[in-house]
Amino acid sequence: MKQNIYDNLEFFEGYKKIRENENSANNIEEKPALFGLLPDLRGKRVLDLGCGYGENCKAFSQMGASFVMGIDISDRMLEVATKENPADNISFVRMCMENISCIDGEFDIVVSSLAVHYISDFEKLSSDIFSLLAPAGVFVFSQEHPITTAPKEGVSWAKRDNEIEFLRLKDYSYSGQRNTSWIVDGVIKYHRTFSDIFNSLLRAGFTIDTVSEPVVEASVINKLPSFSRCLHVPDFLLVKAEKIRV
Amino acid sequence: MKQNIYDNLEFFEGYKKIRENENSANNIEEKPALFGLLPDLRGKRVLDLGCGYGENCKAFSQMGASFVMGIDISDRMLEVATKENPADNISFVRMCMENISCIDGEFDIVVSSLAVHYISDFEKLSSDIFSLLAPAGVFVFSQEHPITTAPKEGVSWAKRDNEIEFLRLKDYSYSGQRNTSWIVDGVIKYHRTFSDIFNSLLRAGFTIDTVSEPVVEASVINKLPSFSRCLHVPDFLLVKAEKIRV
Repeated sequence: MKQNIYDNLEFFEGYKKIRENENSANNIEEKPALFGLLPDLRGKRVLDLGCGYGENCKAFSQMGASFVMGIDISDRMLEVATKENPADNISFVRMCMENISCIDGEFDIVVSSLAVHYISDFEKLSSDIFSLLAPAGVFVFSQEHPITTAPKEGVSWAKRDNEIEFLRLKDYSYSGQRNTSWIVDGVIKYHRTFSDIFNSLLRAGFTIDTVSEPVVEASVINKLPSFSRCLHVPDFLLVKAEKIRV
Repeated sequence: MKQNIYDNLEFFEGYKKIRENENSANNIEEKPALFGLLPDLRGKRVLDLGCGYGENCKAFSQMGASFVMGIDISDRMLEVATKENPADNISFVRMCMENISCIDGEFDIVVSSLAVHYISDFEKLSSDIFSLLAPAGVFVFSQEHPITTAPKEGVSWAKRDNEIEFLRLKDYSYSGQRNTSWIVDGVIKYHRTFSDIFNSLLRAGFTIDTVSEPVVEASVINKLPSFSRCLHVPDFLLVKAEKIRV
């Protein structure tokens, strides 16, 4: 059974609150970076892995995509997506990312926002995505930064006078499962080293195009001091990879 | 004036001691990883950037390279190289890595062992290397791991009962100069984030082939417990990149 923490009511309500906060790390850091890596979507077929509320699917549709398929494992998420972000050319499908090789179709762009760190076998996922992409297709994804997913006991910041001093970094070299607390206890995520992430993509056949570790601007940190953490360690890693067999 | 710390006598003597230790991180971790990334050298023209004592040049010659050029900024290093590791098809040249665009020649393989973190402009270096490579040429390099080069005040491990507990990680997001103490004070190195390293290579035209963050085996850690640090954070990052215009 795949993890479906998003259908846990307590998690779902907590997650909703975070996403409604316009100053969330998603809105401030991750979304601009993700959209900045996207190619021109006009006339393109897009697959969104772990689409959640479907806001990105809606945006892809508005950016001119010919067709958008959003998949998610969570019924609750897709209920919101169908209600709040529908469009004629968007299809929301309940499916876990582990099963995308069942999809009978071809896409020009596969996008995944903050979901691949829930998947145990990233190499299989990369390979499945590669198969679903048309030639010259693009895979753009964001995930929690490998430094922040490393510690087995959860990220722990050392502070002095309320200023962040350092992150207690350990266990980075061990790729594998991490049992974390995020909104609720017992959320399972998968830490992977940089080399494991990149070598999985490369072995699947991808060519790396761009790597991004977004850092917020000083003006934002002045307004929202908690973001000063990302001057030490970025919250997110993003990669744009292409299907070009060389 | 480029930094030439290796001609500082105190540094040179200290460095010599480290390299003579068969259980150094270079011998245990870096060298096997670097040589593991090399393609077949038979009949190939090899350029070694920051060749130091020239042991790698000698090895490349013995592995069948048709010609090896080793460059280093340090006279003292090249003196040892010429004395201890000469061969008919090896040419040792005193030159800093910043000036390699002056070399009038073409290479099939450019190698650099633990030297690029001394260079301020990695993107220019990548571009210079790309220009020196023949089509389908390969660039293989090792450097200190970006997590260990991050802290502005030097790496600092927290220990409990003599066991490493964590690394105090800070300043990772700021690529730039670091004034460190290694053997002597005032050694200048350059920290770069993963994305800065990879995007420099990619913008120079390289295709990424393999990424490596070597970790020593349990049997080695049993014998040499200080290597347990690399279960938390690898000492080195290695990359194999190719000159394939796609």
